[in-house]
Amino acid sequence: MNNLHIETLDTTLRDGMQGEGITFSVEDKLALCRILDRLGITYIEGGVAGANPKDDEFFRRAKTELDLKNSILTAFGSTRRKNTVASEDTGVLALADAGTKAVTIFGKCWKLHVAEILNTTPDENLNMIYDTISYLVNCGKEVIFDAEHFFDGYKNDPEYALSTLKSAANAGASILVLCDTNGGTFCDEIYQIASDVVNLFPDTRIGIHCHNDSGMATASSTLAVKAGATHIQGTFLGIGERCGNAQLSTIIPGLQLKKGYRLLPDDSIKNLTSAAREIAEICNISIKKYEPYIGTSAFAHKAGMHTDAVLKNPVSFEHIPPESVGSERRFLMSEIAGRGAVLVKAGSILRNIDKNSPEADLIIEKVKEMEGHGYQYEGAESSFELLVKRCTGQYHPYFELINYKTIEESPYEEFSTTATIKIKVGDRVQLSAAEGHGPVHALDKALRSAIEIFYPCLKGIKLIDYKVRVMDSNAATAAKVRVLISSTDGKKIWTTVGCSNDIIEASWIALVDSIEYKLSLEEGISPLN
Amino acid sequence: MNNLHIETLDTTLRDGMQGEGITFSVEDKLALCRILDRLGITYIEGGVAGANPKDDEFFRRAKTELDLKNSILTAFGSTRRKNTVASEDTGVLALADAGTKAVTIFGKCWKLHVAEILNTTPDENLNMIYDTISYLVNCGKEVIFDAEHFFDGYKNDPEYALSTLKSAANAGASILVLCDTNGGTFCDEIYQIASDVVNLFPDTRIGIHCHNDSGMATASSTLAVKAGATHIQGTFLGIGERCGNAQLSTIIPGLQLKKGYRLLPDDSIKNLTSAAREIAEICNISIKKYEPYIGTSAFAHKAGMHTDAVLKNPVSFEHIPPESVGSERRFLMSEIAGRGAVLVKAGSILRNIDKNSPEADLIIEKVKEMEGHGYQYEGAESSFELLVKRCTGQYHPYFELINYKTIEESPYEEFSTTATIKIKVGDRVQLSAAEGHGPVHALDKALRSAIEIFYPCLKGIKLIDYKVRVMDSNAATAAKVRVLISSTDGKKIWTTVGCSNDIIEASWIALVDSIEYKLSLEEGISPLN
Repeated sequence: MNNLHIETLDTTLRDGMQGEGITFSVEDKLALCRILDRLGITYIEGGVAGANPKDDEFFRRAKTELDLKNSILTAFGSTRRKNTVASEDTGVLALADAGTKAVTIFGKCWKLHVAEILNTTPDENLNMIYDTISYLVNCGKEVIFDAEHFFDGYKNDPEYALSTLKSAANAGASILVLCDTNGGTFCDEIYQIASDVVNLFPDTRIGIHCHNDSGMATASSTLAVKAGATHIQGTFLGIGERCGNAQLSTIIPGLQLKKGYRLLPDDSIKNLTSAAREIAEICNISIKKYEPYIGTSAFAHKAGMHTDAVLKNPVSFEHIPPESVGSERRFLMSEIAGRGAVLVKAGSILRNIDKNSPEADLIIEKVKEMEGHGYQYEGAESSFELLVKRCTGQYHPYFELINYKTIEESPYEEFSTTATIKIKVGDRVQLSAAEGHGPVHALDKALRSAIEIFYPCLKGIKLIDYKVRVMDSNAATAAKVRVLISSTDGKKIWTTVGCSNDIIEASWIALVDSIEYKLSLEEGISPLN
Repeated sequence: MNNLHIETLDTTLRDGMQGEGITFSVEDKLALCRILDRLGITYIEGGVAGANPKDDEFFRRAKTELDLKNSILTAFGSTRRKNTVASEDTGVLALADAGTKAVTIFGKCWKLHVAEILNTTPDENLNMIYDTISYLVNCGKEVIFDAEHFFDGYKNDPEYALSTLKSAANAGASILVLCDTNGGTFCDEIYQIASDVVNLFPDTRIGIHCHNDSGMATASSTLAVKAGATHIQGTFLGIGERCGNAQLSTIIPGLQLKKGYRLLPDDSIKNLTSAAREIAEICNISIKKYEPYIGTSAFAHKAGMHTDAVLKNPVSFEHIPPESVGSERRFLMSEIAGRGAVLVKAGSILRNIDKNSPEADLIIEKVKEMEGHGYQYEGAESSFELLVKRCTGQYHPYFELINYKTIEESPYEEFSTTATIKIKVGDRVQLSAAEGHGPVHALDKALRSAIEIFYPCLKGIKLIDYKVRVMDSNAATAAKVRVLISSTDGKKIWTTVGCSNDIIEASWIALVDSIEYKLSLEEGISPLN
């Protein structure tokens, strides 16, 4: 085991921003910095200095509003333009003024880019690197040098690529970062070339910056550390242009938990999964369920044989304990899961169910029937809990729907839709109406206003997530949809599911489950009269 | 460059089936086999023999209905149970009867599993491997041996792990497949251990089977080939239990296009992207847009500087030509894209637009305004085309909406919803009504029945995909949604987008665009009177 400290630089706010569909407000950027700081990421690349009003506002507000405890904020920019002076270059001046302790400068290392993209001479490119870095070092900045296309450049002309690193080191750059900008280099070549560079620059920190176009960014970053690199650049969730950047949420636990390197404070690793979810919210993306370490399937067992083995000894099918990254083991219900998983799950809901209970068969039958209608209880544990209780007679409904109606019109003034609903609680009938943005919203409001009369404890409930998955999407507008709704009472979060080929009906089913679930938590509750 | 043939085995139908949320009908399984066969995958693992009625039916129908030209179908199963005879073991007999030319047998190599999961002795485990394989070889089967947990077993007790391979080889297994079942081994260790095995078994084909729990399955499979393995197991799209299996769609183009190995016939590689999309349809999953080679973002350029460079020389920011895998280069519109990408795109729609056109500014302004409302034209190129034409006065609408109304009721008999719609074409007003499963379906039917009266060419149009993305999903049922609709006239496919915090309205906007787009293709069309 190794105990060496490895620096991390998260560039979600700069390189990640170049990912398709990604956009951040200034508030988003500030919130993301706070999460990364709390985790203990070494550097946070906040944006491009002087490039657009949003990044300028971010750097301005960061000075007063961000109080980073662990991380160093950096601003990103390029070398000065050709045939100019660094001290008069607007981009370089913007970097000097960004108010960050460190700056990242990218420079060209591949002759093809020097000739065809910059349209300048190899020597002028070296001067551009040297001038820019020495100017910023003289301004008191720590300078990180991102050697763009280093691996492609090195394979094309090793001597020239190395001379760009020498210019940067001579100018005072503190870290030389080898970038596989196009993501096309295989991990064994990354290892070999990084080893060469580490040997040639024994007194300088060497960093690695990979892209995932070959699907090897995690492996390449990890092998670069084996070669002697001590600084890793990436984005926490792997977002970035084309196929994305190296994903820190995969690289960090691998190196820290398995190889003993220190990337984050020890007590931070167990916050990996929750931090990933917070970051995904800000990026407005869903974490792929298969994602190593942080995905919801990462420790989910489905095959019957695997489930049985994990119950005997978790190490049999788990490479690390799920709790070490703040995740949890899950057993999935499905046609191939077998009785084991269903029993574990049902047994955690009702203690009197064991493998010989007649209820176990009832539950398995019901799950299969509902799966036939498009249901999946993976991810909607609260609806599964209600299913188990309904199957076993442990449940009585808290209200009865008599009917609902929604009317939507276009054109409209404030609200497009009106909903009316009639429910029955005990022998009392309650009619209620509401307007909303679309039928689901109107129906949600109408249902709440009717039912809160009987159960005031529902007033604090908020829906916090609403997802729609179109199944068999080639049935187009008549396709079956699965709706997932997450609700909270401020303490607990629960998720329920509904399926139908009518989106309103599917939403209705999930809404009703979310209310029934909350009421089922309040033991012995009875309606007001 | 290497010219060695490397075998591929796709286990989507067996190991992939263990992925969360994955389920296949027998029809799905047969369809998937045909796609993999057309691509030229060497082996297709069709399922577990004798494990469940669905797999049994699949193997039965495969005998008569599948006419594979390139691939060999295999059935999967385990070694015989302990202290029994292979020729009397129901699982082994099911394998012998499955009707496939080849079978895959998995056996234990890690003493922990032998002792704690099988509950037997190391020697009996070796007998179980030997007996099972020799019985099946005597039945005339080619036997592939999946050495389960080989790497964990080797690290724990190399001698014992190797003795399991020897038992399999002595019994006549044609391929020894080293499995990293828990996915926890790093790629450099995979390389080292695979090299050891290749040296010890110079006369036997060695295979590799990786899982992605450490995020390195692509790198590990690739390095195993470097070590001398000539057989790669994985799933085409990487689906599988927990974090999934090694992804063939990434490994194949990497080894073939960059290292010159032969995995698929040369003319097959350019079908990689379209095959991936067909397989995703069958698996009912979306391909992550960042996916190497096959994702829609894999060759998408967003940063202004990158776009400009790619226009000068594509190799500057592309590791391979996109067309080599049947993909295409895309320039994205966005706040950081700059004028370049918008101009390229707009110029491909209207030839008279160049970088000095006043229309360019109008289009950029409009795109920004729509993005503010939640629109994204990435993926909805037809709506973008309409936007460009609307901005530049090149467009006149084909009909006008006067009003629509939808009424949904629960409980209901056949259809929950009725929609009425009133449109105007020229000076003629047309009222129409329809019933449907939910408001979008009813509205779609009502609109079509009204407008086809004027434009009969719309009769052949089918909606083939309908997707709903909830944005800001924590606004719950009042959240803004983005709807994407794909339509076809049997020859062309086009996708349109609509946004609103009312799902009906968002769907309406996308529906109208899909109809307007089709009519805009029919130059000079005028309505019937």
